[in-house]
Amino acid sequence: MLALPSPREEARSAAAARQDSLTKPRGALGRLEELALWLAAWQGRAIPQAERIRVVVFAGNHGIARRGVSAYPATVTAQMVGNFQAGGAAINQLARQAGAELKVVALSLDRPTGDFTEATALAEAELVAALNAGLKVVEPGLDLLCLGEMGIGNTTSAAALAAALFGGDAARWAGVGTGVDDAGIARKRAVIDTGLALHRTALGDPLEALRRLGGRELAAIAGAVLAARLARVPVLLDGFATTAAAAVLARMAGKALDHCMIAHVSAEAGHRRLADALQMRPLLDLDMRLGEASGAALAALLVRAAVGCHAGMATFGEAGVSNRSP
Amino acid sequence: MLALPSPREEARSAAAARQDSLTKPRGALGRLEELALWLAAWQGRAIPQAERIRVVVFAGNHGIARRGVSAYPATVTAQMVGNFQAGGAAINQLARQAGAELKVVALSLDRPTGDFTEATALAEAELVAALNAGLKVVEPGLDLLCLGEMGIGNTTSAAALAAALFGGDAARWAGVGTGVDDAGIARKRAVIDTGLALHRTALGDPLEALRRLGGRELAAIAGAVLAARLARVPVLLDGFATTAAAAVLARMAGKALDHCMIAHVSAEAGHRRLADALQMRPLLDLDMRLGEASGAALAALLVRAAVGCHAGMATFGEAGVSNRSP
Repeated sequence: MLALPSPREEARSAAAARQDSLTKPRGALGRLEELALWLAAWQGRAIPQAERIRVVVFAGNHGIARRGVSAYPATVTAQMVGNFQAGGAAINQLARQAGAELKVVALSLDRPTGDFTEATALAEAELVAALNAGLKVVEPGLDLLCLGEMGIGNTTSAAALAAALFGGDAARWAGVGTGVDDAGIARKRAVIDTGLALHRTALGDPLEALRRLGGRELAAIAGAVLAARLARVPVLLDGFATTAAAAVLARMAGKALDHCMIAHVSAEAGHRRLADALQMRPLLDLDMRLGEASGAALAALLVRAAVGCHAGMATFGEAGVSNRSP
Repeated sequence: MLALPSPREEARSAAAARQDSLTKPRGALGRLEELALWLAAWQGRAIPQAERIRVVVFAGNHGIARRGVSAYPATVTAQMVGNFQAGGAAINQLARQAGAELKVVALSLDRPTGDFTEATALAEAELVAALNAGLKVVEPGLDLLCLGEMGIGNTTSAAALAAALFGGDAARWAGVGTGVDDAGIARKRAVIDTGLALHRTALGDPLEALRRLGGRELAAIAGAVLAARLARVPVLLDGFATTAAAAVLARMAGKALDHCMIAHVSAEAGHRRLADALQMRPLLDLDMRLGEASGAALAALLVRAAVGCHAGMATFGEAGVSNRSP
């Protein structure tokens, strides 16, 4: 196992001391202070930055999509990638608002994964290739990485993966995804439970669970989260599928997601459960369930605001404001 | 009673139809869609704007501050106004991030209100002057108004006002404010309950409750909320004190706050109760308890994002993306 870098505690302490000197009651900026300290610790500086923000959307296609688990046909994955490239999707608008660079990585869309009710989703070489695609989107010097996905059928894959990692069955982890009807959700749950039964003996190993149940975009997210850790780049995880992918690492090493925050808790049913299982508290709760890094890009606005306050506010001394008695 | 303008339902319907045509599952942008429709209804156009955003911080001083209800001395109100003017406060950084104009209105800081444990906080002419100061900050053509306050002692005043408007005593409505200790909170609660007892017979009239217990900045907020309604300008209310001030109008006319959203639910204890009493669901929950419109300016980022998506996204037809079967 790789040794994972730890946060720089001296930078965190210096940032905390600065926060306590700024012209506000101690702690009054709440989670904005938490964000500033988290960024400071991972960037390794008392005054972190939020200038170089990269949003990455990984896209993949799923063998199980043909089983009627989504409200949309599988062709929509490639069509939405076209929409990302043309600037017409929600994430294009949200990344622009956040002042972030948007990168879209389409992963062999013409080759869906194996149908996990009958076979393994990814061959070993395919898993490695997808992990590598994720590793490549990270470079040192990024201030923040926002990760998300697009892939018709992937909440089915993510729910199966969550069940493999944390226990429980489809009923526990599967929701409406893009909006399937009751018959669709029954099919979706049957698909998941069939997959869990078929691969049961192999699911104790998180990476093997990812290979058998996951998609290329989910593997790429796991790779990107790992690469970000090695480069000490803080990460905002988008919704349910992204969190499930990152959870693979959490099950391999307890503190593997310490450089990550969950940006937004999805309206997709399993996401809050997954956040609870990971003991992570999402930043936003806006009833969104879109994926494509939309929640992460929104939360990047909070990160920018947090850094703006941390870096730009006057101290009590500078402003000539009376502090409370110590 | 003034006739309050209603939202433009035809603009809301047109905005809803547009949302349903955009390249995302129906409803998948959650509260961002709600924000877009709310703005459309009050601005009276299917594609609303979020360009002209004004943040207003009203500041006032309170007679009850001398009773040791705050962790800070009353001189801090004027010092913080100086800090706002010099650009060193949190709201300066947050308003800049939101692309908003910041206006600070200091209301007779050298003349604190009467101590409501012994007298009426404001004379009638003072109440009218403060309401008028609020009316003046609104002008037609604003896309969004963010309201907040600064005033040492004003969570005591706001808690007393909330109790007068919605019932209950100090224990129900008073929290730590800027961070008083246990002895401070005991003093604060005693001050509130003394005030409620002294003015008991007059508190049935919301405006009279505001005059007897409120501060100038709270009255100005009520004035600004009313003026915004008359000009059909949507309003983001900041934390506890701002919401308590706006609640005066809600108690005068049931739908008086339909053009308002609560931006952020404060860590100050009474705020969630107040939001519940008003049947309003705050947009953000980030453990903040600063006031000075900080939560409202943060939520303005969400409003900009909502409008960005609403106006900028491609429709299924434009993008050539297959929609689900109807």
